[in-house]
Amino acid sequence: MDSLLIRRNDLHFILYEFLQIDELSKLPRFAEHSRATYDAALELAYGVAETQFATHAKAGDEQEPVFDGQRVHLIPEVKAALDAFCDAGFMAATHDYGAGGMQLPAAVEQACMALFSAANIGTVAYAFLTRAAANLVAAFGSIEQKARYLQPMLEGRFFGTMALTEPQAGSSLADIRTLAEPLDDGSYRLRGNKIFISGGDHELAENIVHLVLARIKGAPAGVKGISLFIVPKFRVRDDGSVGARNDVALAGLIHKMGYRSTTSTMLNFGERDQCTGYLVGAPNQGLAYMFQMMNEARIQVGLGAAALACTGYLHALAYAASRPQGRLPQGKDPAAPQVPIIEHADVRRMLVTQKAYGEGSLALCLYAAKLLDLQRHTEDESERVRAGLLLDILTPIVKSWPSQYGLEANALAIQVHGGYGYTREYPVERFYRDNRLNPIHEGTQGIQALDLLGRKVAMAGGAAFDALLAEIRLTIAGCSTVALLAAHAEALEGAVKLVADTTRVLLATLRTDSSLALANATVYLEMCGHLVVAWTWLGQAKAALRTSVTTAGNADLREGKLLACDWFFRCEVPKIAVQAKLLQSLDRSLLDMRVESL
Amino acid sequence: MDSLLIRRNDLHFILYEFLQIDELSKLPRFAEHSRATYDAALELAYGVAETQFATHAKAGDEQEPVFDGQRVHLIPEVKAALDAFCDAGFMAATHDYGAGGMQLPAAVEQACMALFSAANIGTVAYAFLTRAAANLVAAFGSIEQKARYLQPMLEGRFFGTMALTEPQAGSSLADIRTLAEPLDDGSYRLRGNKIFISGGDHELAENIVHLVLARIKGAPAGVKGISLFIVPKFRVRDDGSVGARNDVALAGLIHKMGYRSTTSTMLNFGERDQCTGYLVGAPNQGLAYMFQMMNEARIQVGLGAAALACTGYLHALAYAASRPQGRLPQGKDPAAPQVPIIEHADVRRMLVTQKAYGEGSLALCLYAAKLLDLQRHTEDESERVRAGLLLDILTPIVKSWPSQYGLEANALAIQVHGGYGYTREYPVERFYRDNRLNPIHEGTQGIQALDLLGRKVAMAGGAAFDALLAEIRLTIAGCSTVALLAAHAEALEGAVKLVADTTRVLLATLRTDSSLALANATVYLEMCGHLVVAWTWLGQAKAALRTSVTTAGNADLREGKLLACDWFFRCEVPKIAVQAKLLQSLDRSLLDMRVESL
Repeated sequence: MDSLLIRRNDLHFILYEFLQIDELSKLPRFAEHSRATYDAALELAYGVAETQFATHAKAGDEQEPVFDGQRVHLIPEVKAALDAFCDAGFMAATHDYGAGGMQLPAAVEQACMALFSAANIGTVAYAFLTRAAANLVAAFGSIEQKARYLQPMLEGRFFGTMALTEPQAGSSLADIRTLAEPLDDGSYRLRGNKIFISGGDHELAENIVHLVLARIKGAPAGVKGISLFIVPKFRVRDDGSVGARNDVALAGLIHKMGYRSTTSTMLNFGERDQCTGYLVGAPNQGLAYMFQMMNEARIQVGLGAAALACTGYLHALAYAASRPQGRLPQGKDPAAPQVPIIEHADVRRMLVTQKAYGEGSLALCLYAAKLLDLQRHTEDESERVRAGLLLDILTPIVKSWPSQYGLEANALAIQVHGGYGYTREYPVERFYRDNRLNPIHEGTQGIQALDLLGRKVAMAGGAAFDALLAEIRLTIAGCSTVALLAAHAEALEGAVKLVADTTRVLLATLRTDSSLALANATVYLEMCGHLVVAWTWLGQAKAALRTSVTTAGNADLREGKLLACDWFFRCEVPKIAVQAKLLQSLDRSLLDMRVESL
Repeated sequence: MDSLLIRRNDLHFILYEFLQIDELSKLPRFAEHSRATYDAALELAYGVAETQFATHAKAGDEQEPVFDGQRVHLIPEVKAALDAFCDAGFMAATHDYGAGGMQLPAAVEQACMALFSAANIGTVAYAFLTRAAANLVAAFGSIEQKARYLQPMLEGRFFGTMALTEPQAGSSLADIRTLAEPLDDGSYRLRGNKIFISGGDHELAENIVHLVLARIKGAPAGVKGISLFIVPKFRVRDDGSVGARNDVALAGLIHKMGYRSTTSTMLNFGERDQCTGYLVGAPNQGLAYMFQMMNEARIQVGLGAAALACTGYLHALAYAASRPQGRLPQGKDPAAPQVPIIEHADVRRMLVTQKAYGEGSLALCLYAAKLLDLQRHTEDESERVRAGLLLDILTPIVKSWPSQYGLEANALAIQVHGGYGYTREYPVERFYRDNRLNPIHEGTQGIQALDLLGRKVAMAGGAAFDALLAEIRLTIAGCSTVALLAAHAEALEGAVKLVADTTRVLLATLRTDSSLALANATVYLEMCGHLVVAWTWLGQAKAALRTSVTTAGNADLREGKLLACDWFFRCEVPKIAVQAKLLQSLDRSLLDMRVESL
C-alpha cells in the first residue's frame, strides 16, 4: 500500500511529468543532481515523515505546549522528530554545498516539505520558521551575522522566528511600534511587544533567533520606517558559543484550534531594558526585506494546505473503500450484503472533489516552487525575469486558493467518514482544524486579494498578468487539438477572456476609484484562483496523456487525472462566469452600506 | 446592547412580521396565548440561556465528559443549566396544560430553542434528545407507558435518548441487528450494541429512557422488521419510583470535535442477558414511528446550525466594530488613526454574508416550525394537509442548508477575527467546531439529498413539490409590483423555472435509471436550498418594507434586511443556474468511474 501522506506516484507525476523538473539538472546550480538524487531525497522525506512526524501528530495535538511560568514543555517526540529532520539535512536542503546544504531545487525540497506537512504540520512548523529566518539572514545579513546566526540555523542548532505582528497591528504593519535605540557599539536596544509569534519559545534548540521588525528611534512613520533586527534569545559570544539570556520574555502562550504542537507566543522585548538587537542590512528597509522573503513563506502555507487536503483525501479514500454501508438505489434487498461506501455516487463525488482540490493545489504550489528555482538559477536573464513575474503574481493565489479549497477538501474528508469523521478516533478532524489556520496566517485571504488586485496585476505595466495569461494560452494551444481535452481548452479560453475583461474593467476603475475597484477584491482573487487551478488541471491531463502507460498503476493514474480534470471543468470552471459578472457590475453596496444596518 | 445570541429585534421580526405568528393565537390550541405570552417565553429563554447556558459553554467544551469505568463525570454547570431549563418549563413547552405543559406554538418554542442553541448547543442537546424521546412516547406509547416514562420526562426527572445507530449500520438502518426476544410478561429481552448515542449516560437525571430500534426475533429483514422499544437505564416500579439498574452498560465515550459537553456513547444492551425493553406501538412499525418524529429532530439540527451562525455573526460584528486595524485604500497616511475593521469592504462582505446565511436559515427553520403548528392544530383539513406536505418537502432542506451554510458563516466569523479567530480566547472557533457536526448527525447531507429527490419531490403525485412552488410564486406575485423588490421577484421566478425544469428531467430519469437520477442528488438538494432561502429573503424583505418604521432600530433592521436580501440575490441566486445546468446534463461520470482511478 502506498503512503497515506501523498501518493508516491502522484508526487512523481507532478514533479517529473507535469513540471518536468529533470530539466533543472541542466542548470549549473543543480548539475550534480538527477532524478536519482531527487528520488533519494523524496524517499528520505517519506521515511522521516512517516516514522518521526506522523507518529506523534495525534499526541502533539492532544497534549499542547504548557508554560509553567519558567519553561515551555512539549512532548519529547517533537524534538526527536525535528532532530531527525535536521540530521537528514532538510533544514539546509536548498543551501550551498559549502554551507553544508544539499543544493536541492526548491521544487524537490518543497515536495519533501509537503510530506512533512501532511504528516504533522504542527511539528514541522518549527523547521519552516527556522528556514524562513535563515533565508532572510542568508539574503540580507552581514558576513559576521551569517557566521554567528545563519550557520547554526542551517545545522539545526539554533531555531528561528519571524516576529512581525503586534497587538495593535495585525495585518497593518504600518502601525508597528517596537522601538530600537542605537547604542554606541553599533547594536540596538529594543523595546516592544509581539504577538502570534510561532515557535517564539521552546527548548528544542540551543538558541532562538528572532527576526524582529522594529522602528529605529526617529524613523519615518508607516511602512517606510521599519527596520529588521536579529534578536537572539541567548546572546552569542564571538566564538559562537551560547551565552547569557537576552531580555526577551515569554508573556504567555496562545491556544489554537490547530497547529497545536507549535507554540504560539506573546513575547516582550526589553521588559528590563536589556534587550539587544542587531540591524540587518540598511535602516528602514525591513519591510522590503521581509517582502522579498514572503513568496517562500506564502508558498509554504499554500503547500501545507494542499498537503493536508491530499492526506485527508487518502484517508477518506481508504475509509470509503473499506467501510460497508447501505446498498445501491437499484438493489435494495436487505438480505444482500452491504456495499463499501465508495460505491455510492455521493461518496465518489466527495472523493473526486477532494482529489481535484488537493492534487490541483499541490501541482500549483510545486509549479511555484519550480519558478523559484528558475528565478534564482536560470542563466537566461529574460527567463529569470519572466519566472520572477509569474511568481510574483501567483504568490497570493498560491497562498490563498489551497488554503480555502484544501480546507473544503478536509470538510469533505470528514463528511465521507460520517459520524466517525468528527471524532478524534480518525485524523480527518485534526486536518480540518489544522487547515483552518492557513487562510489567516501569513496574510489573510483579504490581504492576498489586495496584494493581487492592488499591486501584482498592475505591476510592471501589467507584465506579470500578461505573462500569466500567455502561459495559460500556451497550454490551451497545446491541448486544443487533443480530442479528450479540446472542449476543456475551449472552456479555459473562455475563462481567460472573462478574467482578462474583468481585470481591464477593474484596473480602469482602480485609477478613478480605488475603493470601488478593491471592494470585491476577494472575489477577484477566488476567480483568478479558479482560472489558475483549471489551468494546472488541463496541464496535468495533458501530461497524463503524454505519459507512457506500462503498468496498471500508470493507467489508473492517467485515468484519475483525466477524471479530476473533467470534474473541475464541469463543476468549478462555470463559477468563473458568476464571479466575473459580479465583479464587472462594480457593485458599490459594500461601500455604501451603513454599518448600523448590519 | 442587545443579546449576542440572536438579536431580539430580529427574532421578533421573524416571528411577528415575517411569519405573523400572532395568527396562531386564533387557533383553539393557542387560544390563551398572545404576543404578550410569546414575548414572556422568549424573555425567559433569553434569561436562562444567558445566565445558565452561555456562562459555561467554554468550560463545557474544554472539560469534556470523563468516564472512570463506573460513572460519567460532567462539570456541575451542565446539570444546573438543565435544571433551570426544566424549572422554567421548557422541557414541556409545547405539551398540554394538563400534562404540565405551556401549550406554546412550536414556532415560539423553537425560537426559544434557538437561543439555548446559540448559548450552548452541547448542553442543551440533552434537553433536545429528551424532548424528542418524550414526543415519541407521547405519539405512540400506551397510556401506561405515558404515565411511567413520559410524565417524568416532561418534568425533567428522566432524560431520554434515541438509540438507532449500530457499529455496522450507520446511515443504513435496514442493517440494524439488536435483537428483542418476547418474554411471557409481555416485555422483551434485548441484546445488541449501539453507537453514537448522544446523552447515552450521565447522572443529570434520575433515569434515562432509551428509545431503541431493534428486531423482534423472526421479524422480516430490512426496514420492515424494525420495532421500537423503551429501555430504561433504571427499572421503574409500578408506583413510578426508580428501581434497580437495567442491563444497559456504557462501553465507552466517544470524543468529538464539537458538542463536547454532550456525552456521545457506545452502549451495550443485554451484556448479562438481563436487559428488559417494552414495545412501543405495534411490532415492525419502529421505523415508521421514528420517521414521523424525524421532522422535528431534523428541524432542530437546522435550527441549531442557524443559531450558531447568528451568534457567530454577532460576535464577528462586535469585534469588527471595536477592533482598529489599517486604513482605507484612499487614505493611507500612517499618522492618521487606524479605522475599525468594519470600515473595510472585505470585512463587510464577510459580515453581510454571515447575516444572509444566518438570518436566512433562522427564518427558514422557524417557518418550518410554524408549519408544524399548522399541520397539527389548524382546524381546516386542507390547510393541515398543505402544511404537512410543505413540511415534508422542506425538512431535508431545513436540516441541510443551515448545516452547510451556517458552518460557512462560522468560518467567516473566524476570518473576521483574524489570528484571534482560531484561538480559544474567542468563542467563534468553538461555534465552528460545534457546527461541523450538524451536516452529519440526524442524517448526512447525502441522506437528506436522497430523501428529497428520491422520496419527497415525487410523493403524493408531486403534490408537495407543487405546493412549495405555489407558495414561492405567491411571494413573487406579492413583490413584483414593489419597486425595490421587482428585480428580485423576477430573478426568483427565473430560479423557480430552472428548478422546475431540472426536477422534471430528474423525475423522468428516476423512472428509467434511478442511479443516474440520484447520482448528483446532493447538488439538487443544494440548488433547492438556495431557491428556498432566496424565497425567505424575498419574504423577509417584503415584511421589512411592510413594517412601520418608528425608531432608529426599526429603520436599521429594515435596511439590514433589504441589504442581506440584495446580497443573496446578487451573489448566491446566480449559483442556481450553474447547478441546474450540471443536473440537467445527467452526468454519468460518478457512476461510470473506476474506483481504482480515484
